[in-house]
Amino acid sequence: MADERNNDIEETTIKGVNGPITGWLDGHTILVGLMAYPIRHTMSPTMHNNAFAKLGLNGAYLCFEIDNEKLPGAIDAIRTLDMRGSNVSMPNKKKVIPYLDKLDKTSQMCDAVNTIVNDHGVLTGYTTDGMGWLRSLNKDGQDVKGKVITLAGAGGAATPIAVTASLSGAKEIRIFNLNDDKWEQAVKNVDTINKETDCVATVHHLEDREDFKKSIAESDIYCDATSVGMNPLQDQTLVDDPSWFHEDMVVSDTVYAPRKTKLMEVAEKAGVKHIYNGIGMMIEQGAAAFKLWTGKEMPTDYIQEIMDQN
Amino acid sequence: MADERNNDIEETTIKGVNGPITGWLDGHTILVGLMAYPIRHTMSPTMHNNAFAKLGLNGAYLCFEIDNEKLPGAIDAIRTLDMRGSNVSMPNKKKVIPYLDKLDKTSQMCDAVNTIVNDHGVLTGYTTDGMGWLRSLNKDGQDVKGKVITLAGAGGAATPIAVTASLSGAKEIRIFNLNDDKWEQAVKNVDTINKETDCVATVHHLEDREDFKKSIAESDIYCDATSVGMNPLQDQTLVDDPSWFHEDMVVSDTVYAPRKTKLMEVAEKAGVKHIYNGIGMMIEQGAAAFKLWTGKEMPTDYIQEIMDQN
Repeated sequence: MADERNNDIEETTIKGVNGPITGWLDGHTILVGLMAYPIRHTMSPTMHNNAFAKLGLNGAYLCFEIDNEKLPGAIDAIRTLDMRGSNVSMPNKKKVIPYLDKLDKTSQMCDAVNTIVNDHGVLTGYTTDGMGWLRSLNKDGQDVKGKVITLAGAGGAATPIAVTASLSGAKEIRIFNLNDDKWEQAVKNVDTINKETDCVATVHHLEDREDFKKSIAESDIYCDATSVGMNPLQDQTLVDDPSWFHEDMVVSDTVYAPRKTKLMEVAEKAGVKHIYNGIGMMIEQGAAAFKLWTGKEMPTDYIQEIMDQN
Repeated sequence: MADERNNDIEETTIKGVNGPITGWLDGHTILVGLMAYPIRHTMSPTMHNNAFAKLGLNGAYLCFEIDNEKLPGAIDAIRTLDMRGSNVSMPNKKKVIPYLDKLDKTSQMCDAVNTIVNDHGVLTGYTTDGMGWLRSLNKDGQDVKGKVITLAGAGGAATPIAVTASLSGAKEIRIFNLNDDKWEQAVKNVDTINKETDCVATVHHLEDREDFKKSIAESDIYCDATSVGMNPLQDQTLVDDPSWFHEDMVVSDTVYAPRKTKLMEVAEKAGVKHIYNGIGMMIEQGAAAFKLWTGKEMPTDYIQEIMDQN
């Protein structure tokens, strides 16, 4: 595959550098990666490198175009190059598991990993996406403890949200999915949650609109963790009737491009007070990984300003 | 070996960053490495990363602690991670050769590589140390064409200097070495040069002081490419009598710490007009590698200012 890819060092317009850089990007700098394909348009390196620079930490976060075929070699590279770790994203989140030494509880339950930490040669897999979603709610004073959640989806965003919510004290999670290629994962998520936690999980057909409407009405939190609402589906929403929502609930969309989705507009019309897009989840999942690699809190307000401007 | 090494991301004091960095260290950034052990105190990343930032090139240069044992995996990593290339230094300069696809002429003659270029999966080895030495002389109006050179040493600096000078039109190279573990390499260098170039090379015993003195007197250029003069040998010089030198010759020391060596002091006393330490060679070998990776000229005056201040 290597010869199909571009590893040319290209011209760019750099902002934020005002003279010789010293004390960073030197012989002591430790590499963190992101291994996925495609990957070039991700905001993750901008997030992590600005956090390193802001906090004065000698790390650098770079992206590598890694597909399933290259994955075993890429994990070898983490060990050989003494990288501090890596994020992994599609198509590697499940495939990476056999190459790691240990998995945290959330990753075991999700059967997926988005963050690898290299502790002196021992690679541990974590899943910070669900924690990112939860931290973004917590930051605004919301929590999942004792709550009833209606969750649309069973994919890479939905699964860790369901698992993390169940491990964090949610009372009930109702997972809605189409009868498509993710239905099996929806069933698996429900089984795992019921087996491993005190949360009551149920699986529902998204095609059953009456059941879906009733569930949302009974819920404290509605979360859409599908790709509906995201380009090229930006004109769509699973809920287009404001009357389905009630004011005191939380409505969360994991999409962040556009920043305001159709779902969020519908929730606004319903007078819902706590509405969230996916930008907080995106930043907080990074912050959770950053904490694992560095032991430090990412300056998320500063990072969010950068994300909003770019 | 991994567990003996520190891959913690440590606190540092960063200069040269004045706000959010954008357009660099993002999803498009291509990695270049330096693979050697030990390596943390090298100035090479400061040189290359500041050149990337100054020219607006989306590359990053990081160091990896790679010994002979880890070397095969590290070369795999260049391919798997689509790195643009890497420098290699001790203890890998010779050992790396079997893992590459191609070698340039200088590397073949030196039987050593300090720079790897990854052209879409094809790895070519180069040796830019000799070119760095020559470019540093050229920059000051000096050349090797038609010249007689007395060269002390047959190690990692001396060998590429001898080979590059021979390929660049030097008339005669007289290599002086002690009867130590590098004597065999000195003999090999002379054989290779005589076989492959029009330059006349001879090997001499550094213990024969009369022969050494006579050779320097007959030479246009004297180059000390040994570690004499460098910490912990900073009080030593192979030539301590100014009368051995003549004013119009070039005296070059490949040592750059300290910036002024004992040899350079002796040459000054002799009234030698063209005296060089190793800083120009160090920067120019990097500039030659930088050109191979990026196609661009490193801004060496700017880089030298940074090197001189750090």
